[in-house]
Amino acid sequence: MPDTEHMIFIMEMIGTVAFAVSGGMVAIRKNLDLLGILVLGVTTACGGGLIRDLVIGIQPPIMFLKSVYVTAAVISDLLLFAIVKCFRSSMEFLSSKFYERTLNLMDAIGLGVFTVVGVNAAIRLKLDSYVFLKIFLGVITGVGGGIIRDMMVIQVPAVLRKHVYACASIAGAVCYVLLYDVITAGPAMILSTLLVIAIRLLARHYEWNLPKAI
Amino acid sequence: MPDTEHMIFIMEMIGTVAFAVSGGMVAIRKNLDLLGILVLGVTTACGGGLIRDLVIGIQPPIMFLKSVYVTAAVISDLLLFAIVKCFRSSMEFLSSKFYERTLNLMDAIGLGVFTVVGVNAAIRLKLDSYVFLKIFLGVITGVGGGIIRDMMVIQVPAVLRKHVYACASIAGAVCYVLLYDVITAGPAMILSTLLVIAIRLLARHYEWNLPKAI
Amino acid sequence: MPDTEHMIFIMEMIGTVAFAVSGGMVAIRKNLDLLGILVLGVTTACGGGLIRDLVIGIQPPIMFLKSVYVTAAVISDLLLFAIVKCFRSSMEFLSSKFYERTLNLMDAIGLGVFTVVGVNAAIRLKLDSYVFLKIFLGVITGVGGGIIRDMMVIQVPAVLRKHVYACASIAGAVCYVLLYDVITAGPAMILSTLLVIAIRLLARHYEWNLPKAI
Repeated sequence: MPDTEHMIFIMEMIGTVAFAVSGGMVAIRKNLDLLGILVLGVTTACGGGLIRDLVIGIQPPIMFLKSVYVTAAVISDLLLFAIVKCFRSSMEFLSSKFYERTLNLMDAIGLGVFTVVGVNAAIRLKLDSYVFLKIFLGVITGVGGGIIRDMMVIQVPAVLRKHVYACASIAGAVCYVLLYDVITAGPAMILSTLLVIAIRLLARHYEWNLPKAI
Repeated sequence: MPDTEHMIFIMEMIGTVAFAVSGGMVAIRKNLDLLGILVLGVTTACGGGLIRDLVIGIQPPIMFLKSVYVTAAVISDLLLFAIVKCFRSSMEFLSSKFYERTLNLMDAIGLGVFTVVGVNAAIRLKLDSYVFLKIFLGVITGVGGGIIRDMMVIQVPAVLRKHVYACASIAGAVCYVLLYDVITAGPAMILSTLLVIAIRLLARHYEWNLPKAI
Repeated sequence: MPDTEHMIFIMEMIGTVAFAVSGGMVAIRKNLDLLGILVLGVTTACGGGLIRDLVIGIQPPIMFLKSVYVTAAVISDLLLFAIVKCFRSSMEFLSSKFYERTLNLMDAIGLGVFTVVGVNAAIRLKLDSYVFLKIFLGVITGVGGGIIRDMMVIQVPAVLRKHVYACASIAGAVCYVLLYDVITAGPAMILSTLLVIAIRLLARHYEWNLPKAI
């Protein structure tokens, strides 16, 4: 199925760009210089795939063999840098709702795409009978990039702080596993990714809260 | 030796529950919501085993293949959540000596159990001639969960801060390696685990201090 | 080529000692006790090699099989501890330019050595056609130890903060890849390592700055 491979590559690219931008935006807010922005962007963009490959034993991980992922992340962050530099005055940019919303959207896209990509990696391993593995690999691939991004700038990862962050990823992974047997891979991937994004955006908009112990 | 396998599984379960509770308690103190508690609990409980499996090349790691570990961690943290929610008023709970002591005990149990489990993993690999590997794998498996827990909530890991934390793990690993050749695996595991727990609790009680450079 | 192997081992030892000292110095400034100093020193010294081995699938990683690396790191940090304890009064030591400069130098040496060692590991894998892999593996091996060190004491990693830190590693890796085909391995290693160290020291001295977005 070369089409499915093609589809997965396109999704990986979308996720890479989205996470690269999210990492770059966090780096800008943390007042890092251009190189810091690029490093955090690349780390965020490639972190999920790196974890996926280490977990399933693809060594060296694909990001080390194909430069396209790192290149895409670097170009995304250079563009982000140029755009922020040119079009917006600083404080305005950082305090703006636009910043918050863009960061959230990029993070949601990356989370959704890499969750599905992670499930796919498990399916390709012919580990179909391990339903738990498929879902868990999806979740850890999805949340991995954001965890590395947040921990590198010394803030508690979104997966611990944000409303229904892990839930969104789990829902997307389960959705993809269920749909995969019913419809073709392409639409199943798109629908599952959109589900994750929708849950994250709705959770943010309606401020869905989970109970606290205290 | 199915008995030894059985024994190891029981110990892994004990360590998983203990570390899940320790992760959950830290999450509650950090004011995370229910999902944050579950994520930190699972991460703490499964982190040591994940590191062990990556180090010795078991890919995918066992926690991805068998859902029992994650399930046990989730159930432990749900129970913890319910207990804290029902029986204790907040400030009282967090400031209490009971909290501090329970957290320390859970951490010590997890440290002891996973140290021994880590040494066992090296022994099962038939890497018996590498004494250093056996001890080091035990230590990194033992301290791994706690390091991930602490770093995710942005605090310096216990292994750097706490009195004789790494020493306790090293002592337990050495003890198990020595006993393994002398007595049967079961009692050797239990004694070594108890040694780690005893050292940690004594170190805390008597506030054993190591010198500082300055 | 036993000579090349010998050379690589010597470089690994130099890098291990340099990173062990850098980790120990950071631990001393963070007021950790002797065990904390040793743990952070070993983690910093062996972190880069651990990442390298996991990435290319050497499992268990070499640091677990050969105790010489951990031993060298521990001895370095014990010596550092003794020297700091004996010869310098505390505040003076920590606030001194000497501290800052020594830490920077040690970090630069470790960065340079492990970058070259990382590239070498890729070459030994006969992955010569993957130029990107060779460079990237060098960079991640070089910066890995410092990232783990900084994140464990909850500070933003040098690779995100410091002037041209990642650039220096990339330059060294590219230099080694280019020189490797032209001159023998030994001089190529030394020149590339010195290039990284020179860039880092010059960047610090002249305070080379990269632009920020805001």
